[in-house]
Amino acid sequence: MTPRLFVQAGLATGTVLPLPADQGHYLRTVLRLSAGAELALFNGRDGEWRATITAAGRAGVEVTPVCRTQEQAAGPDIWLLFAPLKRSPIDFVAQKVTELGADVLWPVITRHTAVRRVNLRRLRSNTVEAAEQSGRLTVPEVREPTALADVLGQWPDGRVLFFCDEPGAGGPARPAFAAAAGRPAGLLVGPEGGFARDELDAVGNRADVCRVSLGPRILRADTAALAALACWQALAGSWTDAPWAPKT
Amino acid sequence: MTPRLFVQAGLATGTVLPLPADQGHYLRTVLRLSAGAELALFNGRDGEWRATITAAGRAGVEVTPVCRTQEQAAGPDIWLLFAPLKRSPIDFVAQKVTELGADVLWPVITRHTAVRRVNLRRLRSNTVEAAEQSGRLTVPEVREPTALADVLGQWPDGRVLFFCDEPGAGGPARPAFAAAAGRPAGLLVGPEGGFARDELDAVGNRADVCRVSLGPRILRADTAALAALACWQALAGSWTDAPWAPKT
Repeated sequence: MTPRLFVQAGLATGTVLPLPADQGHYLRTVLRLSAGAELALFNGRDGEWRATITAAGRAGVEVTPVCRTQEQAAGPDIWLLFAPLKRSPIDFVAQKVTELGADVLWPVITRHTAVRRVNLRRLRSNTVEAAEQSGRLTVPEVREPTALADVLGQWPDGRVLFFCDEPGAGGPARPAFAAAAGRPAGLLVGPEGGFARDELDAVGNRADVCRVSLGPRILRADTAALAALACWQALAGSWTDAPWAPKT
Repeated sequence: MTPRLFVQAGLATGTVLPLPADQGHYLRTVLRLSAGAELALFNGRDGEWRATITAAGRAGVEVTPVCRTQEQAAGPDIWLLFAPLKRSPIDFVAQKVTELGADVLWPVITRHTAVRRVNLRRLRSNTVEAAEQSGRLTVPEVREPTALADVLGQWPDGRVLFFCDEPGAGGPARPAFAAAAGRPAGLLVGPEGGFARDELDAVGNRADVCRVSLGPRILRADTAALAALACWQALAGSWTDAPWAPKT
């Protein structure tokens, strides 16, 4: 497998890019690559590039883009909002929802949220790694934890917000997701304790909020986040498009 | 939260059930419950019962069903077949697909399967715990690891087998799953290395096999298992039913 790295710099033929120390270490020490080896680069703006290592020494590793192998393309526009979780489940959610194509990861503090501290640096690092491995051309934006009322207060016009509810509380997900195909959307998955009565009342009258049920069983919050996103992709998002054939 | 336990014994009003040592320890020592405390019991056959602890001492814990709170009901008929994974991902798959309603978990050995030993005892224990927590009335059956050719050789008539493929290799999941709504089905998720050419050739001609693509990105095997099952439930399984309202 050719290594695939996310970089911040612009990508253009022949530019020499010095890599940050951790990426240099990964290529030179972990993968034991040296000058001349090939890799793939993406930065979220310029598509995917084939590149070669042009210097690999103690002073650092430099790579040089050779040619673009894939154009940057816009995917479905989907945000995932979730009450923060403990370390292992939140790592898992960050990794999995990146693979499943979330554009934004937004920790939301609700009344019953037990975990209020979020290691954003760790969350971002998990999303970068998952984006590199999954063939995505972007890395999801990870936002600062925000109180639910503030999320609702700044919610953009035209974006539907699906409240993924306790079993039986909302309508079935299938028709709700399918009806919103092609629209920007957000999926909000509550904490283990569910939403508080007044939190649900506060959204009850909003035209841009839709309560959906994720089936008849009680799902852990991390399972719910993944299940909601996978279903949204199948019904309204990128799984409905012609399959994308990866370059080999 | 009332504790909820899966038991092997038949459930009927007034029967005294001695619990196995681990369940007794859990109630008496971990939860610190004593005689008179309430719990819920299910056994996969007799629905869910409210029960009370009728003895809790060093000699063991006994419980007695009081009344049935939920009838046993048949759900959608869905098997999950997956190439064995390392310990942490396989624990995760067992837990999550139990929450998402799989009836059978079947480890399948394919050409590119890297992990060939499966701790079935651990897998079963994970499914029991997830069934207890998710409100299911059954525990999935965990089968012995089986070679792919043998799985195909004994595949039952009338059950569709979805081969969940590399990006772009199969048709989109949505119409394929929706077309099989109401039919017994199996979802086969391959190993990280994908299926071998001759494995795909061997199923190419079978009427009961359908290759589907799980979107445009490269998913880890554990992500793929969850995503496939969540989508199947939304499109063909229990998420399409009227939501089930849990008794409180």
